[in-house]
Amino acid sequence: MQPKKKAGRKVGRHEHRGKPVQLRPIGVVRSTIKNRREAPKQGSEGAPDAWLEVSPLLAEGLDGLVVGENIVVVTWLHQGRRDVLKVHPRSDPRRPLTGVFATRSPDRPNPLGLHPVTVREVTKNRLRIGPIEVIDGTPVVDIKPVL
Amino acid sequence: MQPKKKAGRKVGRHEHRGKPVQLRPIGVVRSTIKNRREAPKQGSEGAPDAWLEVSPLLAEGLDGLVVGENIVVVTWLHQGRRDVLKVHPRSDPRRPLTGVFATRSPDRPNPLGLHPVTVREVTKNRLRIGPIEVIDGTPVVDIKPVL
Repeated sequence: MQPKKKAGRKVGRHEHRGKPVQLRPIGVVRSTIKNRREAPKQGSEGAPDAWLEVSPLLAEGLDGLVVGENIVVVTWLHQGRRDVLKVHPRSDPRRPLTGVFATRSPDRPNPLGLHPVTVREVTKNRLRIGPIEVIDGTPVVDIKPVL
Repeated sequence: MQPKKKAGRKVGRHEHRGKPVQLRPIGVVRSTIKNRREAPKQGSEGAPDAWLEVSPLLAEGLDGLVVGENIVVVTWLHQGRRDVLKVHPRSDPRRPLTGVFATRSPDRPNPLGLHPVTVREVTKNRLRIGPIEVIDGTPVVDIKPVL
């Protein structure tokens, strides 16, 4: 039987090992993209710019980021499915099922997103960034400069 | 008063907003680097290769990764301090205090590490990867192909 689109082999939520750790979002993306269907697969595929609102209590952590800089925004893809281990790349059923760690699928055990973007504007605790393909309300967990 | 090396302005652990999410490690790095003092600041600065042991239950997620491929290994830098918002880059006290989000310091609210490495060898649930600067026992939370 041919698996349905997006369906893959699954793993129970608590079967694999390793002590869980807690991520606390540092901010959120405010975007014109409102749902997963509208979202391009990659930032380079026509994604818009967006605002990254960082918690005011963490604003100091932004000191040193400047307009024009390239950064990697690390998000928590909160709509990702955590029980999927194989997917059809780009949701294309003609492509063979592939391990999620060999793809950028948002469906994966820890649905982290890595988004290389350019800083367009910096205010106190907000960064205008882009292009970025995530949906409005996506939690941000880290920001790193590109070396 | 001049802040001590590594000391920076701090934030209470639970002061900032955003619903916490749980990361479950997918594996662990087995390295000859045994403590933070021995670790180079970047993989390109003389770091060794290492084994990435993925939970056998998640091994299917590796299908499609091949020798020679460039991937990003996402780690949880378990020795990072989560209450630090500013650091002296590269622990050099002559450099001005900078927001952690403008640096790659392991000390940051969510101590995630992004490590671009090459796949040297693939067995069932183990990847030989490198060069990588993390210490032995560092939890791995995700693996992504480089686009």
